[in-house]
Amino acid sequence: ERFAKHYENKPGMKVGIRVNPGVGSGGFSKSTTSFSKTNVGGPSSSFGIWHELVDGPVKDIVEKYGLDVERIHTHIGSGSDPEIWQQVAKQSLSFCKIFKSVHSLNLGGGYKVGRVEGEKTTDLQEIGQPVADAFRTFAEEEGRELKMEIEPGTYLVAMAGALVTTVQDKVTTTGEGGHVFLKLDAGMTDVLRPSLYGAVHPITVLPSSGDVADVGSETEDVVVVGHCCESGDLMTPKPGEPEDLAERTLRQAAIGDLLIMDGSGAYCSGMSTKNYNSFPESPEVLVDREGKPHLIRKRQPLEQIFQNEVQLSSTSIFADPVGASEAA
Amino acid sequence: ERFAKHYENKPGMKVGIRVNPGVGSGGFSKSTTSFSKTNVGGPSSSFGIWHELVDGPVKDIVEKYGLDVERIHTHIGSGSDPEIWQQVAKQSLSFCKIFKSVHSLNLGGGYKVGRVEGEKTTDLQEIGQPVADAFRTFAEEEGRELKMEIEPGTYLVAMAGALVTTVQDKVTTTGEGGHVFLKLDAGMTDVLRPSLYGAVHPITVLPSSGDVADVGSETEDVVVVGHCCESGDLMTPKPGEPEDLAERTLRQAAIGDLLIMDGSGAYCSGMSTKNYNSFPESPEVLVDREGKPHLIRKRQPLEQIFQNEVQLSSTSIFADPVGASEAA
Repeated sequence: ERFAKHYENKPGMKVGIRVNPGVGSGGFSKSTTSFSKTNVGGPSSSFGIWHELVDGPVKDIVEKYGLDVERIHTHIGSGSDPEIWQQVAKQSLSFCKIFKSVHSLNLGGGYKVGRVEGEKTTDLQEIGQPVADAFRTFAEEEGRELKMEIEPGTYLVAMAGALVTTVQDKVTTTGEGGHVFLKLDAGMTDVLRPSLYGAVHPITVLPSSGDVADVGSETEDVVVVGHCCESGDLMTPKPGEPEDLAERTLRQAAIGDLLIMDGSGAYCSGMSTKNYNSFPESPEVLVDREGKPHLIRKRQPLEQIFQNEVQLSSTSIFADPVGASEAA
Repeated sequence: ERFAKHYENKPGMKVGIRVNPGVGSGGFSKSTTSFSKTNVGGPSSSFGIWHELVDGPVKDIVEKYGLDVERIHTHIGSGSDPEIWQQVAKQSLSFCKIFKSVHSLNLGGGYKVGRVEGEKTTDLQEIGQPVADAFRTFAEEEGRELKMEIEPGTYLVAMAGALVTTVQDKVTTTGEGGHVFLKLDAGMTDVLRPSLYGAVHPITVLPSSGDVADVGSETEDVVVVGHCCESGDLMTPKPGEPEDLAERTLRQAAIGDLLIMDGSGAYCSGMSTKNYNSFPESPEVLVDREGKPHLIRKRQPLEQIFQNEVQLSSTSIFADPVGASEAA
């Protein structure tokens, strides 16, 4: 139906087709498939056309409207398993066989970045080798060489950014389930990943003096939380259990100390609860190769938070005569 | 330490003390305490001073600096259990006994709003009765009447707002775990509650024609998802299982139909992933008692999304001579 609307009377139009290949990885649990809401491929994902529909309804529409399919796209999410990548590449290449006009296969992104110890970073050589072989076999068999496209955004930038904030308060609860909490001058308004899907980020605490001598050797097991009036504004979720909080062993912090949250280069500044509790957007600083800082985003002025709001006089809203007379 | 900094040389300063009474409710699971990250009271919450510290360190500081404690504040989150409210009120009143200057007890908010069938809405009379009795007993015993304060924000506005959007696409996956997905022209950029903590909102689908005759009697079991390139942008999480998606039985929808997500008056417009994927903030419309609509927030113009970004010339960033010569 959607195809029909878009492509009627446009023969020869160049199109790309995103396919859901029926398998996916992704999610932040120990087993990468146990949280179905974080899968970007497979039956619990809405992204792309279901693989079983390609050599059927999709082909029919392409033929009926005379479309020129130049690209197949699949994207299965963050995974490091060469076997899954090989399987997806092979299946994606099979879609390229259906449409002889295809010249590019985009395998999407999702190269997992290990942000903390124990998290595996995708080895591009390791997962790429069998994929490259599959492309070569395709070229031999089909007589056409496909261009391979990938989207390694997170892989490139995740570890290139850090949230720099301060410890605003330190709070203690005792007894069973008690913790020491570090409360930050930042939170889900800046980095939402831990709250949203239990992502685990590296955290380092530095003394406010900036003096190496003040680092000390004392550590403390703490739960780190953000500044929002929201219990879910949590920076240290339990690995593999997004709904639980966990303690992290950090340098013993005092109020005013600096707290650095690494791995904040992807899906952080771009995906946060901006202006929640009327917190303005943080400034962003780029540090160049010489270590020189450059402001690349200014701190948001408060008036921008409500700049699109429209004032109403109360008399124009409420027909109730009591309300109206009160306002008059 | 923080007290000392703030209150030195300010004798007689009026202060309020927020106490974590050691119990909490909240969360969106069947059992209200199973998700520790959504508790706002109890040992897994960082909000307020731990109750065991009040009649000790806190009292010492108050006496040392000669502070005038006029208000005690507790806030345990969304719950409807009269016994818990009674227990918290009783305990909160005990803190008021410690400081004879207290004239107000703020019991915070957290009156649960049932948004969908089966979710209980707090009965204010039911939970208020034993609390009022406890305040009266306090007045008789202590010889002073306390003012009771509550913060019923969500209770008042949650059901007063709705997200109005359209069905942008309909996608089907088959086999085990397969679903029909409705994809919206809105998402976690407008209402984040389902993605963030598995909140369940009522959803109604209406025909695009606006004609009652087109409503029809057919229903369909669907998973509703948002427009973001994010698998967690999910509008129908499994009740009690924030990490899983669930099907909802809705009127059978076609692309272009209207989808109304009710219960969006609280923690929605104010708490969303604004500008994720460069989606602008939605406009907001207030409907008055006569049914007349008033625009109260304009749709955000695209240029506001990047208005605080600062342009850099590439030569000013990269010291690398190759990079510099390429830029020149």
